[in-house]
Amino acid sequence: MASGFTRPFEAIDHQALMRAHVPPPEYFETDWLLGPEEIEARQLERLRARARRAHDVPFFRSRWEQAGFHPDQLQCLEDLWRAPSYTVDDLRRSVEAHPPLGDYQGASIDNALEEPVRLFMSGATTGAPRPTLYTQWDREAGAILMARALYLQGVRPGDVVVNAWAYSTHNGAFAFDEALHKWLNCVVLTTGTGTVTSSRRQVELAHQYQATAILTTGDYLMHLASVAKDMGLDPKKDFNLKALPNIGDRELLEETWGVANYQSYGFHEVQWVALECPERQGLHIFEDAFVVQIVHPETGERVPDGEQGSLCITEIYKTGSPQFRYNIQDLSFLHPREQCACGSWLRRMGPFAGRADNMVKLRGVNVWPEAVGEIAMDDSRLERDYFVRAFREGNRDEMVVHVVTRADAEQHAAIAADVAARLKERLGVRIGVELAAPGELDAWTEMHSAPKPKRFRDERST
Amino acid sequence: MASGFTRPFEAIDHQALMRAHVPPPEYFETDWLLGPEEIEARQLERLRARARRAHDVPFFRSRWEQAGFHPDQLQCLEDLWRAPSYTVDDLRRSVEAHPPLGDYQGASIDNALEEPVRLFMSGATTGAPRPTLYTQWDREAGAILMARALYLQGVRPGDVVVNAWAYSTHNGAFAFDEALHKWLNCVVLTTGTGTVTSSRRQVELAHQYQATAILTTGDYLMHLASVAKDMGLDPKKDFNLKALPNIGDRELLEETWGVANYQSYGFHEVQWVALECPERQGLHIFEDAFVVQIVHPETGERVPDGEQGSLCITEIYKTGSPQFRYNIQDLSFLHPREQCACGSWLRRMGPFAGRADNMVKLRGVNVWPEAVGEIAMDDSRLERDYFVRAFREGNRDEMVVHVVTRADAEQHAAIAADVAARLKERLGVRIGVELAAPGELDAWTEMHSAPKPKRFRDERST
Repeated sequence: MASGFTRPFEAIDHQALMRAHVPPPEYFETDWLLGPEEIEARQLERLRARARRAHDVPFFRSRWEQAGFHPDQLQCLEDLWRAPSYTVDDLRRSVEAHPPLGDYQGASIDNALEEPVRLFMSGATTGAPRPTLYTQWDREAGAILMARALYLQGVRPGDVVVNAWAYSTHNGAFAFDEALHKWLNCVVLTTGTGTVTSSRRQVELAHQYQATAILTTGDYLMHLASVAKDMGLDPKKDFNLKALPNIGDRELLEETWGVANYQSYGFHEVQWVALECPERQGLHIFEDAFVVQIVHPETGERVPDGEQGSLCITEIYKTGSPQFRYNIQDLSFLHPREQCACGSWLRRMGPFAGRADNMVKLRGVNVWPEAVGEIAMDDSRLERDYFVRAFREGNRDEMVVHVVTRADAEQHAAIAADVAARLKERLGVRIGVELAAPGELDAWTEMHSAPKPKRFRDERST
Repeated sequence: MASGFTRPFEAIDHQALMRAHVPPPEYFETDWLLGPEEIEARQLERLRARARRAHDVPFFRSRWEQAGFHPDQLQCLEDLWRAPSYTVDDLRRSVEAHPPLGDYQGASIDNALEEPVRLFMSGATTGAPRPTLYTQWDREAGAILMARALYLQGVRPGDVVVNAWAYSTHNGAFAFDEALHKWLNCVVLTTGTGTVTSSRRQVELAHQYQATAILTTGDYLMHLASVAKDMGLDPKKDFNLKALPNIGDRELLEETWGVANYQSYGFHEVQWVALECPERQGLHIFEDAFVVQIVHPETGERVPDGEQGSLCITEIYKTGSPQFRYNIQDLSFLHPREQCACGSWLRRMGPFAGRADNMVKLRGVNVWPEAVGEIAMDDSRLERDYFVRAFREGNRDEMVVHVVTRADAEQHAAIAADVAARLKERLGVRIGVELAAPGELDAWTEMHSAPKPKRFRDERST
């Protein structure tokens, strides 16, 4: 039966795909436990293939030519440092110059009959959304990575899972759906957000079908817990949750639902990059699919293992639009390669520690608002909530962190002094501390309306 | 690589699937043109297989035993009349007795490792939603039928299409997505409804990517047309639309977008059943997947070709949850089998003509509100909008149709009298007519908030 074009089911060799990126549960018995040499030998091979592909894409070719880099220079993993990196601003300029898709795509709508593609866009919280074309291979391989992560978090093949993310131009909800359905045989109950299916109905469905996860933000899951309580249901006893969202207040989520929470890291263009194993000693990177580097947020220079810098990600799993040394400007650090107590040699990174492009220079010291918030909240008298403002006073940049407490007003001055002292000690620079009551920061953080709470406002340019 | 379970990509034989249900475009060169004997021989074979499967499902087995029907009795298509039919009320009672899935499913969540399934639910506009489990085969075969319909409406392989339906517990948005991506290699731009992606952004995307269809209701597409005009864009010239929604005001849509509109028919449990070819002489039924009968709305008895009655649908394409003589209570009629000018021998049905369960008996005459609305709107002085109310006056049931006109107030009495006369002539019974200005019925029809406008309110029980 000849249609004259390659339909998605014909577009990839599933056996080859599963050899390249082993799906769960078998992954955790096989490639999760590979030795360091095997991990790195495979990375080099894939890295070279990705570089050759990226070299055909105008955005990369022109930047590489300008920087004097050529794929043939990749003789070892170390050589990856020779390639130039880029940031989201470079992608945005590419879209502006070549609308609507930019010149960084490695697949094409015009060629969709030979190479079926899907088109998704980053969330448009800041600036214009970045479109990405994914080949069928990219979707499937990405879904396998997502499926591994969901498995490690507690979802099991055949489970019922509620997907409460918004199916939209963003790939998030689809990525979860594909992982669950295609690679874990889970029964996906698609509710969408609360505006699509009421919160009460979502709780009812999760309860009726004994879902093992409700995929959404931590904040929304906390809201569902309170709806459940109003309905006379106990989040710990009347549900069957085994996995929790990795955005939100870990302790509060674990305490409310009685389930372990694992941190993870991912973003639009490449989906799931890394996540914690039950040892919770950093986030294991899926190194069959990624090479992760840490660079200095300002200079782009290499930063030693253990030191915080900006994540620079190269994906080595796609066939379509490449991401080759994408300085994503999220802050983290790398652990040196060593065997984890779980048995894996996969490199681990620290948790997301803020945005590099939020960096503020205070009297010569680089300060990131999210780091300030984390340090401040070490005080047990404070809630897990904060908001940082940077502003100009006289000729100097200043920063204030607003923190939340339930303590009596007469204790506020002492708490603020203690927090300020800790910040000075840890960061080497004075930062203002102001106390607020629970809920008072909500208008700034947009806690109840945005998928991720806002934590920083730069008032220096206004 | 043995996972110990059957993943969706392994669950079906795509070559067998495409032989059973040929996808577009090749379908229109092959099975669309089959002769009557071949069509019916295949129907009988599939019907018998479906009956054997349904016989294993408790809901069907118990009803069949009670009615003295057994699958072995199916020796010819005519024998289908021996099987008992059921309505949505029977399905609802099944869910109430066996929550949450009822006892009418032919697939199971417990067996999802061997037979991967998806779970969707009917819209909950009236009563509790009806859940349906779909096997992988059911989804793919259903997607092929949807792809044929989209192709016949004007969508072509490789096109960009905006999907503005809500991805939710309902299968609608997914069914379109699967048809477009899996069988037509279209690039799906998922916007979701206006609450997920703003209308302005939807217009922008459809324009930037020159989408050939925006899948949504006719009403919302008209709203997008007005947003486009506000943005300085001409719906006819600045877009590339080739297909229009089949819910909405045909003439208005065609006039606004400059594209032909084709009527179609489908519903939750079985997806797309029938649609018009460009000859517009009725809706061709996909007879490789359905046997359609017309029954008397009250007695369930057979109704002759050409006469209006309730649609009774048997699907013959699934492997999972059967629908075997489902009296869907939508009103239509069947054309006798004859060759259409387009070349096809596939049986044609009339367009959706209202809901059988909305029937009101007025002085011995069965009247359906939607038929009243259609007859009333034949008057060229009226807009394409109406609302019907039934109420009790003295000892009699009465009916009033509210229609919309832009005519001056002094003409209203004459218009109302003309419309009432036409209704009396066509239906044999007196029906009240009241005129309203454009927009005045919106609160009743919920035109701007519901996916399908409401057309009827039964006030007799209040």
